[in-house]
Amino acid sequence: MNLQFSDRVSTLKGSAIREIFKYAADPQVISLAGGNPAPETFPNKELSDIAKELLENQPVLSLQYGITEGYAPLREQVKERLQRKENIDCEKNDVIIVSGGQQAIDLTTKIFVNEGDTVIVEEPSFIGALNCFRSYKANLAGVPMDENGMDIAALEETIKNSKNPKIIYTIPTFQNPSGITMTQQRRKELYEVARKYDLIIIEDNPYGELSFNGEHHATIKSIDTDGRVVYCGSFSKILAPGLRVGFMCAAPEITAKAAVAKQTSDVHTTMLPQLLASEYMKRYNIDEAIEKSRALYKEKCETMLKAIDEYFPEGVTRTNPTGGLFVWVTLPEKYDALEISKICAENKVVYVPGNTFMVDMDKKCSALRLNYSTMSNEKIIEGVKLLGEVFSKL
Amino acid sequence: MNLQFSDRVSTLKGSAIREIFKYAADPQVISLAGGNPAPETFPNKELSDIAKELLENQPVLSLQYGITEGYAPLREQVKERLQRKENIDCEKNDVIIVSGGQQAIDLTTKIFVNEGDTVIVEEPSFIGALNCFRSYKANLAGVPMDENGMDIAALEETIKNSKNPKIIYTIPTFQNPSGITMTQQRRKELYEVARKYDLIIIEDNPYGELSFNGEHHATIKSIDTDGRVVYCGSFSKILAPGLRVGFMCAAPEITAKAAVAKQTSDVHTTMLPQLLASEYMKRYNIDEAIEKSRALYKEKCETMLKAIDEYFPEGVTRTNPTGGLFVWVTLPEKYDALEISKICAENKVVYVPGNTFMVDMDKKCSALRLNYSTMSNEKIIEGVKLLGEVFSKL
Repeated sequence: MNLQFSDRVSTLKGSAIREIFKYAADPQVISLAGGNPAPETFPNKELSDIAKELLENQPVLSLQYGITEGYAPLREQVKERLQRKENIDCEKNDVIIVSGGQQAIDLTTKIFVNEGDTVIVEEPSFIGALNCFRSYKANLAGVPMDENGMDIAALEETIKNSKNPKIIYTIPTFQNPSGITMTQQRRKELYEVARKYDLIIIEDNPYGELSFNGEHHATIKSIDTDGRVVYCGSFSKILAPGLRVGFMCAAPEITAKAAVAKQTSDVHTTMLPQLLASEYMKRYNIDEAIEKSRALYKEKCETMLKAIDEYFPEGVTRTNPTGGLFVWVTLPEKYDALEISKICAENKVVYVPGNTFMVDMDKKCSALRLNYSTMSNEKIIEGVKLLGEVFSKL
Repeated sequence: MNLQFSDRVSTLKGSAIREIFKYAADPQVISLAGGNPAPETFPNKELSDIAKELLENQPVLSLQYGITEGYAPLREQVKERLQRKENIDCEKNDVIIVSGGQQAIDLTTKIFVNEGDTVIVEEPSFIGALNCFRSYKANLAGVPMDENGMDIAALEETIKNSKNPKIIYTIPTFQNPSGITMTQQRRKELYEVARKYDLIIIEDNPYGELSFNGEHHATIKSIDTDGRVVYCGSFSKILAPGLRVGFMCAAPEITAKAAVAKQTSDVHTTMLPQLLASEYMKRYNIDEAIEKSRALYKEKCETMLKAIDEYFPEGVTRTNPTGGLFVWVTLPEKYDALEISKICAENKVVYVPGNTFMVDMDKKCSALRLNYSTMSNEKIIEGVKLLGEVFSKL
């Protein structure tokens, strides 16, 4: 049979990161390509006891169909946390549980974006979000960033030049892949621009709690008086990603429509992981656990930044992350980080080339993403040193 | 903010069944409206021990990100089972793990159906599938059924009169909501029609293993020489639905594209439920457990059919399910099962009115779905008796 795929997916490719993972599977290769949280932060013993108890004593709750919006006590816990930690008005907004932060992006796109509408994105941005927008045949328009986040003048220019602009997608805090945090001033300006052009904002905040110095960056959602911000959060980076438990916080009309769309996608999010997240937060202080993750990532990041400053040749620049999992490195413009990644892979070190995170992935890009969350300090230093050797030879 | 939802979801409504569930929450109400498997079939003690062990001893496997296609050993176990029990050629086909059977339908629609393409469905059919097709702006065309399944002449006529027909969606065995099983002859004819018009077939088979007399109905996938059948299966009715573990078996080009689409939906299916399903099948004989479920549902179904024959007035007809969870009841044509359901709800018994399962939900429908899987035999008899009283008074 000659298969004819739909227009929306016919040119869609899997994340290029997966190709790199083939190299990363070699235990001799140092992978600075991943985006996984450090497994030593997973509270597996605690979850093990909770899982046993739940399945033993609450079989119907754990194993029967659940409701699409999610486990009610978990929704309340998330609301309480968003109110307390993020100053989000959870009287005016609702929370639904979704199958990882990715699904919050997917459902928001599905319910708002017609084929051909434009989604405005930071450039570089998260590949999973870019591919999601592409999978609904959205038109993508990239806005450049500097060390303070999205360039607001460029944002407004981009909106003006776009066909049916509908959504601005941003990861304002400890952005993936750049490690950049948007200033409070820019957040306010971005919100005002969204207001002026009547756009939805997707605020994707999976890393917000992973601040190295404990500094809190007020969310765009916390200044959302119009109900135009869809806030996407996740337990992936603060509990465990394999659980696939995320949440969407938005105006009730939005979460209601998203729930209708979710029903047709996967009926509801798996019960057991929802119950694990809920019960874990009842029994333990998740904030204390997050403190430990922060300290760990801070140390790893400092190790990497120090190694970069020591081993990378002049002309190579980097961002200065204050939280999250990534640092963005830019080679002089004439170099192609994709081509160089192949040389690096032969030298047993891998990263993700920057073109992966761009609207036009086929365009040459001299930047690349490095991750420090999963490797040991020794491996981080060794990996950066190997990269430095390749870069110096060019 | 004045929200503008996308065209694909602007008219999409949640399943009407949820409205009925509001009545069903009253413990005094007998619900014959559900579609849940019987919770006494869940092997919760076994899963409890497995979950504890997995989380304790395999924290990375259980809690870290997994691959989109699913946990490799589970994929192999599903393949082995499909080969052995369903005679599906798993050399030529691949299996990916998805977040419940619903996601297999969702991904297949996403990768094949352009907006405006037609999906041909049995009428009545599963509301979750109908809403999924609607959510991609597909055009729906219904084909009537008789006691032998889809009317094949009507199917061909419908295809000829449809705009861009793309997919035939069928639940050939113990259909939801009708309880009808398509004959082998019809399955072959359906396959030949799909071939003639070069259509994809979605064969949705969540209930196939729940045969009362152990009779096996050969799947359409087992005669699929062209690779045009996408087979959707699930652990929901043979293990536990709250786990949200399903699978898609199809030609490798199809599962590969579905995996790309899945990556943008939820990255991967939750690890722990995948591991639970895999480990459970390694340690225990799932077929023996299914035998017990079959015996249970057989008894419940017989109880319901006997009560129907005793308490329903003349002129009311029913199907004769030989497996699965549902029986379909048809009142004389002048009656509206939706209107009558309100009277029944006041009399403390609920069912799902037939219009819910139709392409045109606004059209009057004199049929209704009854479920026998979750209520006790006593409640089933009492519920049917209450319905009989309402029907007799009309």
